[in-house]
Amino acid sequence: MIDHPAFPIHPWRLSETYLDRDVMAQTESLFALSNGHIGLRANLDEGEPNVVPGSYLNSFYEVRPLPYAEAGYGYPEAGQTVVNVTNGKIIRLLVDDEPFDVRYGALRFHRRTLDFRTGILTREVEWESPTGCAVRVRSQRLVSFVQRALVAIHYEVEPVDCTADIVLQSELVANEPLPPSVLDPRAAAMLTAPLAAELHDQSDGRIVLVHSTKASMLRMAAGMDHIVDGPEKTQVHAEAAEDLGRLTVATRLEPGKKLTLHKMLAYGWSSERSAQALRDQVDGALASARWHGWEAICKDQKAYLDDFWGRADVELEGDGELQQAIRFAMFHVLQSAARAEGRAIPAKGLTGPGYDGHTFWDAETFVLRALTYTTPAAVRDALTWRQSILPLARDRARLLGLGGATFPWRTIRGEECSGYWPAGTAAFHINADIADACVRYRFATDDESFEHDAGLEILIETARLWRVLGHHDLEGKFRIDGVTGPDEYSALKDNNVYTNLMAQRNMLAAADAVERHSIQAAKLGAGAEEAASWRDAAAAMHIPYDEALDVHPQAEGFTRYQVWDFEHTPPDHYPMLLHYPYFDLNRKQVVKQADLVLALELRGDYFTSQEKARNFDYYEPLTVRDSSLSACTQAVIAAEVGYLDLAYDYMGEAGLMDLHDLEHNVRDGVHMGSLAGVWLAAVWGFGGMRDHDGKLSFAPRLPAALENLVFRITYRGRRLRVGVVHHEATYVLTEGLPMEVNHYGEEVTVSIEAVTMPIPPAPKRERPLQPPGRAPTRRGVLRL
Amino acid sequence: MIDHPAFPIHPWRLSETYLDRDVMAQTESLFALSNGHIGLRANLDEGEPNVVPGSYLNSFYEVRPLPYAEAGYGYPEAGQTVVNVTNGKIIRLLVDDEPFDVRYGALRFHRRTLDFRTGILTREVEWESPTGCAVRVRSQRLVSFVQRALVAIHYEVEPVDCTADIVLQSELVANEPLPPSVLDPRAAAMLTAPLAAELHDQSDGRIVLVHSTKASMLRMAAGMDHIVDGPEKTQVHAEAAEDLGRLTVATRLEPGKKLTLHKMLAYGWSSERSAQALRDQVDGALASARWHGWEAICKDQKAYLDDFWGRADVELEGDGELQQAIRFAMFHVLQSAARAEGRAIPAKGLTGPGYDGHTFWDAETFVLRALTYTTPAAVRDALTWRQSILPLARDRARLLGLGGATFPWRTIRGEECSGYWPAGTAAFHINADIADACVRYRFATDDESFEHDAGLEILIETARLWRVLGHHDLEGKFRIDGVTGPDEYSALKDNNVYTNLMAQRNMLAAADAVERHSIQAAKLGAGAEEAASWRDAAAAMHIPYDEALDVHPQAEGFTRYQVWDFEHTPPDHYPMLLHYPYFDLNRKQVVKQADLVLALELRGDYFTSQEKARNFDYYEPLTVRDSSLSACTQAVIAAEVGYLDLAYDYMGEAGLMDLHDLEHNVRDGVHMGSLAGVWLAAVWGFGGMRDHDGKLSFAPRLPAALENLVFRITYRGRRLRVGVVHHEATYVLTEGLPMEVNHYGEEVTVSIEAVTMPIPPAPKRERPLQPPGRAPTRRGVLRL
Repeated sequence: MIDHPAFPIHPWRLSETYLDRDVMAQTESLFALSNGHIGLRANLDEGEPNVVPGSYLNSFYEVRPLPYAEAGYGYPEAGQTVVNVTNGKIIRLLVDDEPFDVRYGALRFHRRTLDFRTGILTREVEWESPTGCAVRVRSQRLVSFVQRALVAIHYEVEPVDCTADIVLQSELVANEPLPPSVLDPRAAAMLTAPLAAELHDQSDGRIVLVHSTKASMLRMAAGMDHIVDGPEKTQVHAEAAEDLGRLTVATRLEPGKKLTLHKMLAYGWSSERSAQALRDQVDGALASARWHGWEAICKDQKAYLDDFWGRADVELEGDGELQQAIRFAMFHVLQSAARAEGRAIPAKGLTGPGYDGHTFWDAETFVLRALTYTTPAAVRDALTWRQSILPLARDRARLLGLGGATFPWRTIRGEECSGYWPAGTAAFHINADIADACVRYRFATDDESFEHDAGLEILIETARLWRVLGHHDLEGKFRIDGVTGPDEYSALKDNNVYTNLMAQRNMLAAADAVERHSIQAAKLGAGAEEAASWRDAAAAMHIPYDEALDVHPQAEGFTRYQVWDFEHTPPDHYPMLLHYPYFDLNRKQVVKQADLVLALELRGDYFTSQEKARNFDYYEPLTVRDSSLSACTQAVIAAEVGYLDLAYDYMGEAGLMDLHDLEHNVRDGVHMGSLAGVWLAAVWGFGGMRDHDGKLSFAPRLPAALENLVFRITYRGRRLRVGVVHHEATYVLTEGLPMEVNHYGEEVTVSIEAVTMPIPPAPKRERPLQPPGRAPTRRGVLRL
Repeated sequence: MIDHPAFPIHPWRLSETYLDRDVMAQTESLFALSNGHIGLRANLDEGEPNVVPGSYLNSFYEVRPLPYAEAGYGYPEAGQTVVNVTNGKIIRLLVDDEPFDVRYGALRFHRRTLDFRTGILTREVEWESPTGCAVRVRSQRLVSFVQRALVAIHYEVEPVDCTADIVLQSELVANEPLPPSVLDPRAAAMLTAPLAAELHDQSDGRIVLVHSTKASMLRMAAGMDHIVDGPEKTQVHAEAAEDLGRLTVATRLEPGKKLTLHKMLAYGWSSERSAQALRDQVDGALASARWHGWEAICKDQKAYLDDFWGRADVELEGDGELQQAIRFAMFHVLQSAARAEGRAIPAKGLTGPGYDGHTFWDAETFVLRALTYTTPAAVRDALTWRQSILPLARDRARLLGLGGATFPWRTIRGEECSGYWPAGTAAFHINADIADACVRYRFATDDESFEHDAGLEILIETARLWRVLGHHDLEGKFRIDGVTGPDEYSALKDNNVYTNLMAQRNMLAAADAVERHSIQAAKLGAGAEEAASWRDAAAAMHIPYDEALDVHPQAEGFTRYQVWDFEHTPPDHYPMLLHYPYFDLNRKQVVKQADLVLALELRGDYFTSQEKARNFDYYEPLTVRDSSLSACTQAVIAAEVGYLDLAYDYMGEAGLMDLHDLEHNVRDGVHMGSLAGVWLAAVWGFGGMRDHDGKLSFAPRLPAALENLVFRITYRGRRLRVGVVHHEATYVLTEGLPMEVNHYGEEVTVSIEAVTMPIPPAPKRERPLQPPGRAPTRRGVLRL
């Protein structure tokens, strides 16, 4: 995408300088706006052409039956699919009765810019109608971070060189037509006409439509209000019907004269509130928005983002493209979570219908990891959502014959929606991933009230799960058999190292938390005996090791499997899951995404440096990165073991995953985990940051191509700024009391006085090879 | 069932002395008639009441889409389901306009008998109509073994004590209503109205209906012809419509006077022949049947069965119930295969819609094993069918990225219909099972022309599969990873011992066959180099062994898994697959059905006696026998290692599997594999017969409860009769040249002179325990 000539590099913006309909699907996702509650794909104001029209409300879903060719005990019968809700971003334009449509007439220019500091998507168009009258359109759109229910749109049109009859139609459209489904398991099962009309209402140009879903019985309201500024004789007419709200503005404009429309759009949904209550809710939000006005709303948005960038910005010198990519990434990560407030963070955020709008382990392992140190309040919200679904997770565990709780592999509302258990339900590591996010959040915030109110319960229930999921064998080792680890080209293996190490941490953390909060733990039925049994199991945890090869097998026996025949795997047979049966992928040495290498990152405290290096070298030639969740992890460990240029290439891949549409599915939404991974590649990779057991440490080191890296983190109420150049790193607090950090094994006290420490040279080691054709694109070589 | 008071024990018959509608579903299957081409459930003549009406033609199926909640590469998209074809067994009766229906009026008596020597199902009823007129009905039904397309019915009715208006309606009914589907994965997806009418025709009381299926595009014809014998004024009227053919006979009978109807029913189907050709085909069959007449048809049937029992009968003294059970079993096994002629043998034969009418590995491993030594021509037919589907199996292998051929786990026509690959498609052992059946057939028949024409190709293609499915690891061992063995509570394991040993035999047998038929092999592209690579792989085959426990793990790592908590598994939680997730069953030590123990049977040549005993002892407490394919195998090995009473109990379980409806699903058809297993329990178990490498051996030994066992086998053109009493065994040929057999390690020449050999005493060993509540019913204790 960015290497498309229409997309110039800019440190603070994503811009498109002309319209290429071949990449329209991708831009709909990349330029999408969201605050974590509302999500709007970047469809054109006039509605058409589009590829995937999309307006989403977090956790507003429909249920659909999950069919099975052969049924089995415990298979989820109902799936959940994100619903394309009432589209309120449509503003149609007619020029002398000719509809403004980029497919007709002539586009003199067409520019779009998403500004990461203002949070506004701006579009500027000059279009000549088929009858030869040219108009200039300028629209701006934002989804407010400050007012959770609000979208604000500024729209203006002026004739360039002719006097024209101008009609604007500002609409709310429910049940808009959707593109046909594609046969990709990663895409969504999109629903046709999911909304049943319940109520429509209009007065004074304020229009509200209330709909509900047919099976999930959720109710939503979308409302709009307008301020019109045009010539004196401008006429305005409002109307509302079941699936259509429309404000029509008609006027006649002379060249250089403008018609301006401020459109306020508000959404609300509930599983409980009545249609009338929801109507009133959005009417109220509209009244408040109107009271603030467009300018103030923009100002608030800017202030919110200034604060965000002030605590979260990453500066990279030496690679303008990556500088843009990391800010793009952080902007989307923020958008996915900022106002989710007790709802899930989907794998695609609210930027598209991919994966049915489900949340997975990506949220905790990638997205929340980046947010923990930049926007911790969003992490608290997200983990509180996890706690809120514990009753469902407990029920699911009981259904599976297990103890504690098993969180769903994929879900919107909380029920397991995974229709293929070997890949989904058996990937129990998600429970440890959630627990780990709780532990990390507490270390990074000292937020004991969260642990008391929510984290403790999550830790206890997940520890209980591991305790019954595993067992002690005859030799006393604690084994966890028959589970699926992160690598989705492996399933149902014994003693997956990642899973076992994360379960170990989970059980130890739960035991510690029970000690810290013994009274609250007692209310949850957990005491010293149970904690002791977790500690015992953790201490006896079986971590397989291949003595002959001197590496850790991803799971028991993995290193004895046949190595995949990469030589004879044609380039167009990636992603492999679309060209080879799971059967064969699962029983050979081929890795979709970092698994053992992710263990090296998250459980880096378990491995020696030598083990990390040997393991990384072993898994590199086996890892095809058919998942967007791999490059960022490989970047972090490549940097740690000294392959700085390789780490840089991987960071480039993570950074351009969506911008260059490397996986050819950005049309369905951006990859939030990978976007968070860009931050991880920078901060955990080149910044060398780790936070094991609440001990913050850094081992920063830059690749040759980068001159300077500056990142900011929030940690235990402090704001820490770290600057890295090739030979030294500088630590300084911009807020908060002095604290200890570890720099390459040395304790350093950091305060508002900057302290600079030397960086030891990287070990010289020969860069490992990837499977043929699967090496990441070399950045240094191609660009500098 | 037999322990139901209506079902008396008889050595040569299955009888029902009164009608109990609670067991009607079961009797529909148990009394079903078939010749392997046509199958008729034992629905009442008058059509209703019924539970599952069923008329089947072997391999006449409809396709249906196989749905997936999450799709994947290589998943079969179309399933095949057996079709309930035009029902021609209906003869309705009206007595003074009251329909004869056992639900109304009064049944004075109602008896049904299936005679294993005549092959005729006889029904005798005395029924008093609601108006008080009693009639006696006697009907007889047979599906001809001699005329493959033919069903013959004799029906007579007489008033007992009143003069009555009698109307008979002999019908052909297409698309009869079916019961609603049940939610049991082992049941079929029954199809509503699967037949599209193409042609109907009638002349002189001969009526034909031709229909075709809508998606599979198969065409079938059902025709009937009649001979009516009644009082002078009897009127006969024939009519035909799209889905109904009907011959109506009206008369008035005085007490003691009879109306007799001989109904000839013929079926034909084709994927290619026209409706007219099929019509003529069944018309022709009817003409021939009419020429023979009822008496001659019955005589031919009897002669066919006399020949069968003469070469296949098993006599058991000391247990009348088992004597009946084994003849019942052999009768059904014969019915399933006799005239299948190039079609599959379904798991339920043609006795019900269970498992969608699919064939599985049961056919080769159980059914064909029993038939090899009793009806070898049917084995040749069945394996020739396997050869005929090799093109499909090769395509499937290629789709899976494999070489050679992969036979479908479940199918009717040959396409893979398994909708859950970890359980189905990954169970590659079926390929070795088919190869093994070819090897066994050749040893038992010396039929070199079969090997040349069909067996060789099967052996080569399956050996090719194994060669690429496995690989040599760094230590040079040949491993087969990630496959599913016979035990369906295990999936996707490495080096399943059964699979590896069967693959080893497969590859060696293929190499030998290539040597024997080098010219034909060359035509199939196989030569010495390829054969050598099979021998190498077979020699290097990795068979895991647990040195600490001194047993063979079912698959790598199995003996380190957690033992299932049988103590806390309630009795109503069996079969476990309906109450526990596959996830948990797969990762624990719990065995659905003999797997390693089946290896002890089929690859008995690999194991020492001590290993057999230790392995059997290890797996007994883990094996729950939730599959009907387990008890018979456990019987064979229990007998071999010396647990004669346990073997006897297991033989009892296999023998009563269907007669007592032990798995509660006989309504969907009898379990053909288990029925063949009764013969195996007798002949391989107590007869101790083995046939490794073409060396026929016996180690017979009886449990205390049995006084005498006599069995007959056909081997290389000889007919051998073996009589076993407690201390000695007698071998005699009733046909053929003298031959060598092995009796307890000693070579014995057998000829028409009987030779008697002593039987050494069984070793004294303590009977192993089964999981709590899962011990087989003790026969000796309860009955003697």
